[in-house]
Amino acid sequence: MRALYYDGQLRLVNKQLPVLPVDEALVRVTAAGICNTDIEITHGYAGFKGILGHEFVGIVEQASTRSLIGKRVVGEINAGCGKCYKCLSGDPRHCPRRTVLGIVGRDGAFAEYLTLPEVNLRLVPDKLDDLTAVFAEPLAAACSILERVKPGEGDKVLILGDGKLGLLVAEVFRFLPCELLLVGKHASKLATAAKRGIDAISIEDFVPEDEGYDLVIEATGTTEALAKAVQLAKPRGKVVLKSTCAGSTTVDMSELVVKEVELIGSRCGRLDDALRLMQERHLDFSHMISEVVSLAKGIEAFETAAKPGVLKVLLRP
Amino acid sequence: MRALYYDGQLRLVNKQLPVLPVDEALVRVTAAGICNTDIEITHGYAGFKGILGHEFVGIVEQASTRSLIGKRVVGEINAGCGKCYKCLSGDPRHCPRRTVLGIVGRDGAFAEYLTLPEVNLRLVPDKLDDLTAVFAEPLAAACSILERVKPGEGDKVLILGDGKLGLLVAEVFRFLPCELLLVGKHASKLATAAKRGIDAISIEDFVPEDEGYDLVIEATGTTEALAKAVQLAKPRGKVVLKSTCAGSTTVDMSELVVKEVELIGSRCGRLDDALRLMQERHLDFSHMISEVVSLAKGIEAFETAAKPGVLKVLLRP
Repeated sequence: MRALYYDGQLRLVNKQLPVLPVDEALVRVTAAGICNTDIEITHGYAGFKGILGHEFVGIVEQASTRSLIGKRVVGEINAGCGKCYKCLSGDPRHCPRRTVLGIVGRDGAFAEYLTLPEVNLRLVPDKLDDLTAVFAEPLAAACSILERVKPGEGDKVLILGDGKLGLLVAEVFRFLPCELLLVGKHASKLATAAKRGIDAISIEDFVPEDEGYDLVIEATGTTEALAKAVQLAKPRGKVVLKSTCAGSTTVDMSELVVKEVELIGSRCGRLDDALRLMQERHLDFSHMISEVVSLAKGIEAFETAAKPGVLKVLLRP
Repeated sequence: MRALYYDGQLRLVNKQLPVLPVDEALVRVTAAGICNTDIEITHGYAGFKGILGHEFVGIVEQASTRSLIGKRVVGEINAGCGKCYKCLSGDPRHCPRRTVLGIVGRDGAFAEYLTLPEVNLRLVPDKLDDLTAVFAEPLAAACSILERVKPGEGDKVLILGDGKLGLLVAEVFRFLPCELLLVGKHASKLATAAKRGIDAISIEDFVPEDEGYDLVIEATGTTEALAKAVQLAKPRGKVVLKSTCAGSTTVDMSELVVKEVELIGSRCGRLDDALRLMQERHLDFSHMISEVVSLAKGIEAFETAAKPGVLKVLLRP
């Protein structure tokens, strides 16, 4: 099968069909999305070697649970050991022995086929088409902020970053009873946000609230934004960090302590939350799709996805 | 009056008695404690110029509230504007126009006299002697952790740092139903902790829990410990930062995000909490007092306080 493989260099390769481990299903990928994390991996993040890609929708072709075969699915990307206290509590996202689709120890979705444990699969409701369902994983990552922080009524919430993740976070927050503002750098992306009814402003025109923000959500995809986010939070305010990037960053320790800011790292969500939200709000993400490209042109697709102003690039095997 | 003054250099000076602002009281200091923050200020922290010192006990000599005169008091160190939303909500610790005794825009306690708003003063119960009451401010800072984090039963709590603050934090936590461990560098300080019934271990002998800690409290007085504290926390664990130091530090952004750690900056507490704890638990801090020195020898006292192995150095005007 055709696959996008990374081992220090991104290459389009021909690979054997994956051998199916016990309790896993073979899924034929119908669409997959390029995420900033994928681009960061090609810059050294996570030290991953293998087939990239963790956002997908596909059809189950083989599974020991017969009723799954032929079904359209998305998949939780963290595959736990099933035995540790995290797995037993129903949350393999922090299993110390987990593999993660296309990120840690497990080939990913930029291929004709992938395998995942059957317990990771979620059926896609008929009314969600492939180009909507493929956003389930990143939308879940946006939803996961609400597992950690509950914004109060009238709270001032600031999203830093007008990229894919920032826009999805805005999609999750725009129906909450808080005062939401998205700050970004790209006129076209800000216009996309505005069309969705989201208050959005260019960083150049942005005049921060004197008192600071109750909640700042950092979704810029850069390490430098951490310090900026801390500055923008009000005393005892909260900062949620969403960007997974290679590299360290510098923070002013005394600012954290004196302002008593709360910094919350946030990663993967739960697909059930995302699928529910998509249905309840009749979401579609066509405004966020910059290109749909054949997997055969995956290398070029990566180059496109990394360009400023580009939103989601989808791959079709 | 005699005072320890800092303006880029620490000097013993003779100053006029302070002029009493409206609604403030004149307090004759009977004992004051040297804190790491004072030492950090002499390294450039907070950019403060003036009389140092914020831990004190004293006698009210002048006040417009007549009943205060002659009373033994400690004082909340943050003096708010009284008009902003923070002050009106009863918490001037984050008033944007606050002054802070011996730290921000207000002369401090290493002097024969100081002034503070009357509303900042707290009466010291008769059964607490001066050398106990002078610990009210740093004990309140330790208590304030519980304003932000409630450790669950059986939670693994790790305190980094066996200095004054680390020992006071241990004093607050040792009666909670959590599993407490203090890690430090100084044999004598660790022995002091052990005598108080606190599990304490040298960093050299410390073997961290595989799963990490539910709560790590950073009280080392250094910026470098932040990264170490994040490493030691379990996934979705909490890290409380207590050290106020000059300087920035580097953190691995992806570790914060992937482990979903929560970093909580924590500063001043409330004296009422500390005074209540002192009485309820019959605390005394004689085991933490390294020296009691005349204010006239304040310069030497600062040198002593900065030495490894030394705990609290108190000044008597």
